[in-house]
Amino acid sequence: MSHIARLFIEQPLQAGHAISLPEAQSKYLLRVMRLADGAQVRVFNGKDGEWRCSLSVDRKTAILRPERQTRDQVSSPPLTLLFSPVKKSRTDFIVEKATELGVSALHPVITDYTQSQRVRTDRMRLLAIEAAEQTERMDLPAIHDAAALPQVLANWDRAAPLLYCDEGGESAPLSEHANRLADLPAGILIGPEGGFSPKEREMLRALEFVIPITLGPRILRAETAVVSALTLWQSVVGDWQQAPYLPEA
Amino acid sequence: MSHIARLFIEQPLQAGHAISLPEAQSKYLLRVMRLADGAQVRVFNGKDGEWRCSLSVDRKTAILRPERQTRDQVSSPPLTLLFSPVKKSRTDFIVEKATELGVSALHPVITDYTQSQRVRTDRMRLLAIEAAEQTERMDLPAIHDAAALPQVLANWDRAAPLLYCDEGGESAPLSEHANRLADLPAGILIGPEGGFSPKEREMLRALEFVIPITLGPRILRAETAVVSALTLWQSVVGDWQQAPYLPEA
Repeated sequence: MSHIARLFIEQPLQAGHAISLPEAQSKYLLRVMRLADGAQVRVFNGKDGEWRCSLSVDRKTAILRPERQTRDQVSSPPLTLLFSPVKKSRTDFIVEKATELGVSALHPVITDYTQSQRVRTDRMRLLAIEAAEQTERMDLPAIHDAAALPQVLANWDRAAPLLYCDEGGESAPLSEHANRLADLPAGILIGPEGGFSPKEREMLRALEFVIPITLGPRILRAETAVVSALTLWQSVVGDWQQAPYLPEA
Repeated sequence: MSHIARLFIEQPLQAGHAISLPEAQSKYLLRVMRLADGAQVRVFNGKDGEWRCSLSVDRKTAILRPERQTRDQVSSPPLTLLFSPVKKSRTDFIVEKATELGVSALHPVITDYTQSQRVRTDRMRLLAIEAAEQTERMDLPAIHDAAALPQVLANWDRAAPLLYCDEGGESAPLSEHANRLADLPAGILIGPEGGFSPKEREMLRALEFVIPITLGPRILRAETAVVSALTLWQSVVGDWQQAPYLPEA
């Protein structure tokens, strides 16, 4: 792994155009990372690829000068995670892991058995940024506001299969649906602890774009089901045939 | 999900043979779960299947009377997770998730880049018990003492493929090795943050039973790699063709 700091920024990246970082990011580079004038930083903004920048310091402000582009922009595969918020630390975990596993969007969904209605999308965004920086991603997942399950289903693009992980009925492994999933955007829906209500199950199974899948004989916690289902999608129809990107030292 | 408490115990389970629980478990059932005389408890010990027991209380001691066996004993598939200890909360997470995902053994391995040498196998066991109770497992994973990587490799059963997740070189997805993995015990080796040292990579790749696999283009944290690799093994050669067990209400 590279030991050169990697940072997501909001500003455009263009050779020769210096960028003044806002207070929090300046503080992170100068105080937490303790970088000094002349240090190298790897920077991406989800649009202009990745750039090597050199750091200069103006009082308490970090200034980045893009020197050369080191990677082209690439987008994550079109995969939305729809998840029921759970306890705070486990929701944090879901956001971190889904970002590592390359989802293009995160959508909190309120279901009949959802315990925790409070969803902080600003916090989700910060966690997603940190995970994207760590994992060599080139973009951030979009973060949607929480919505009730029936509303999410009514607005869903019916051309995109929605994989629904349910412990309560007959279903096949994801790999058996590989042909139906190929070359399409998709969603993965994970319920709260306790799963879906009988009414929700009925509603889901009646929809043509919904595909129930199994995650084996053990009952998984919500956040484990998230990682397992995303792994299966990425390995069967996503981008896991590609090798990891290894930055120069 | 069943709302009947599920408990792992050390004692034999046999119809009519009452079991006095030790202090910690008595406290859990009586004080934390607040169960009273006559309550039902689901109990397993990794040997005698799962039993419905009825609870009685003798002062501060919980006594369980096995009434009928509700499930036969089954063993988890022969899959060992070899992992480098990481930060405490992330090591806890690895133990919890590996137990949920059905590993038969957990083996902490000290590698060149391992930061945290301290491994508390007693704590690992408690976390594994809790996860096994939650996840409807019928057994516990074996928990091995930590050992250095060269020693672990020297003692490894060479008939069992050892899957090694490495971001640093050419490797194929696990599914491409399905034939070689079928019907064999296996191990999955996950390194610490920073991966394996060049020396370790060379050592691993020289061993015939070691199979390098890829987990896609993004750099995963150690605990994410654990969940992803175990998911792939279970779905390709493990027991994920089986439906989940749903206890009676």
